[in-house]
Amino acid sequence: MQPPQPTDVLDARARIHGHIRTTPVLQSNSLDALTGMSLFFKAENLQRAGAFKFRGATNAVLQLDAAHRSHGVATHSSGNHGAALALAARRAGLPATVVMPSNSVASKRAAVEAFGGRVVSCEPTAASRVAGLAQVVRETGATPVHPFEHPHVIAGQGTATLELLEQVDAPHAILVPVGGGGLLSGTLLAVRAAGFPVQVIGCEPAGAADAERSFRARQRLVDFVPDTVADGLRTPLGEVAFEIMMRDVNDVVSVSEEALLIAMRLIWERLKLVVEPSAAVPFAALLPGGPLHTSLRGRRVALVLSGGNVDLDALPVLPAVPAPVPNTLP
Amino acid sequence: MQPPQPTDVLDARARIHGHIRTTPVLQSNSLDALTGMSLFFKAENLQRAGAFKFRGATNAVLQLDAAHRSHGVATHSSGNHGAALALAARRAGLPATVVMPSNSVASKRAAVEAFGGRVVSCEPTAASRVAGLAQVVRETGATPVHPFEHPHVIAGQGTATLELLEQVDAPHAILVPVGGGGLLSGTLLAVRAAGFPVQVIGCEPAGAADAERSFRARQRLVDFVPDTVADGLRTPLGEVAFEIMMRDVNDVVSVSEEALLIAMRLIWERLKLVVEPSAAVPFAALLPGGPLHTSLRGRRVALVLSGGNVDLDALPVLPAVPAPVPNTLP
Repeated sequence: MQPPQPTDVLDARARIHGHIRTTPVLQSNSLDALTGMSLFFKAENLQRAGAFKFRGATNAVLQLDAAHRSHGVATHSSGNHGAALALAARRAGLPATVVMPSNSVASKRAAVEAFGGRVVSCEPTAASRVAGLAQVVRETGATPVHPFEHPHVIAGQGTATLELLEQVDAPHAILVPVGGGGLLSGTLLAVRAAGFPVQVIGCEPAGAADAERSFRARQRLVDFVPDTVADGLRTPLGEVAFEIMMRDVNDVVSVSEEALLIAMRLIWERLKLVVEPSAAVPFAALLPGGPLHTSLRGRRVALVLSGGNVDLDALPVLPAVPAPVPNTLP
Repeated sequence: MQPPQPTDVLDARARIHGHIRTTPVLQSNSLDALTGMSLFFKAENLQRAGAFKFRGATNAVLQLDAAHRSHGVATHSSGNHGAALALAARRAGLPATVVMPSNSVASKRAAVEAFGGRVVSCEPTAASRVAGLAQVVRETGATPVHPFEHPHVIAGQGTATLELLEQVDAPHAILVPVGGGGLLSGTLLAVRAAGFPVQVIGCEPAGAADAERSFRARQRLVDFVPDTVADGLRTPLGEVAFEIMMRDVNDVVSVSEEALLIAMRLIWERLKLVVEPSAAVPFAALLPGGPLHTSLRGRRVALVLSGGNVDLDALPVLPAVPAPVPNTLP
């Protein structure tokens, strides 16, 4: 398939309108004061199935032709894309199969099943995921919908940014978390489509900073063993995303595990939103000591809160916010 | 002071516009399927200072005359009203003192101080709160702003319902939690002011069901020892609220501690909102087995999620949602 183009994001938006939720943008005076910025949080944790992934999955499902519909769709996913595809398929009346690594978060596995998807387990390696999906496709004739390489998925993810650019007046930068790179590449295409001069910065946990390393080396370096609580970002950067990233991204940065957990706690505490660790990574980059704290001070900064699918029975320990406690207006 | 009138809620809305946030109304297909209703959650946990209380506090602060402004405001509060008043006062450039019982949630105490309020501790009894506030007023000349008896506070709380009635088309019922009754009485006045035929139902934890007992007995029965995790609802029903309640409320019901914790977990898990236990009480009443589950089936039901100020270091254990796990569209 052709790589996705900026106009594909505009088409995706028209296509999935009425299927997805327009998510709100939230602000917090106390988080503004803490960072010295004007922050705009795009709450994609409030999206259907609890993550932006429902946008791309819906955009893919709605483009299946009649010959392929009855065989349904299949994918491999550590969680959010699988749940999103299962739900998008169910709403369209199609079967869905999701190949999930055995170390997936229990609640994400349960979500796929709750949405009527069939779960097939595999070893927690990229090779095992690919092999598992190939076998499902052979057996069922399902159309594979890759979680971040598929052009329809990438275009769909970009629609969050089109919305954002209507909701927030003239942001200086948009920050998104980077796992496979579907959200980052979709965001870059959306910004091109909107023709708006805004920086786009990818944010990763230091324990899965393959996009940052690839960006600096100008070649795709994805041979790494992820070590991060941000389960949605353990995936290696995709090839399509790498190409789009190298053309358009302004920067890619990474944050420590401690910083992302503090960021997650602050979002729960101050924004009153349940977000998963992955969603807190961009905000972590803006905190005092974070890689973007100095460069973006005084700026209007938008962040995509990518998802809210945490396992409430297995929450990470949330560290106390270090002193000085910000004593500021919320 | 005169008891508050329906038109006072309309005036309050005009007065506090631009000071408060218009909070979103959220929906969840999975919670609709679980209850067999169409549910509309008014997310006042996203209000400034994390609770609807900021509405009433702001409405009171903005009506102080010049002679009283410099002496500031004072109140007694287990938490949310105190934080709201401290923030409203700070935004208006006034000092605020909050008398708080020694068993208040630590994070709520910290919030008052973060907003620049002075905290004065007292014993966790109604008498001690009243005495503590009287002493502060004597010493400082501050204007007392009672958390739920003050007419300006009650009128301010009602503005959440005026917003709700514009955001949700023709709800059959509005459910609110009841502690001192400021939100309930404000809601009843707002519904009168709007002239809209909608039921209003108060919801309490069984361990602090004084409003329910008072409603059934047709007399104010507030001699009880609260026993509930819902720290915002341990307060006895106020006199002003009792009068308004007896005139206009459709029903008052109560729920078990287990039901309210299951409800809280479902709201965190499905709506991705951080809410405090008190905020989950109305939803608990709608769950299978709850007191309103049968009577409101098939109806459009609005619920006010009153606040989101939980102490993340001291969360109650959230029980697993009992089987059958709803296998439904979110």
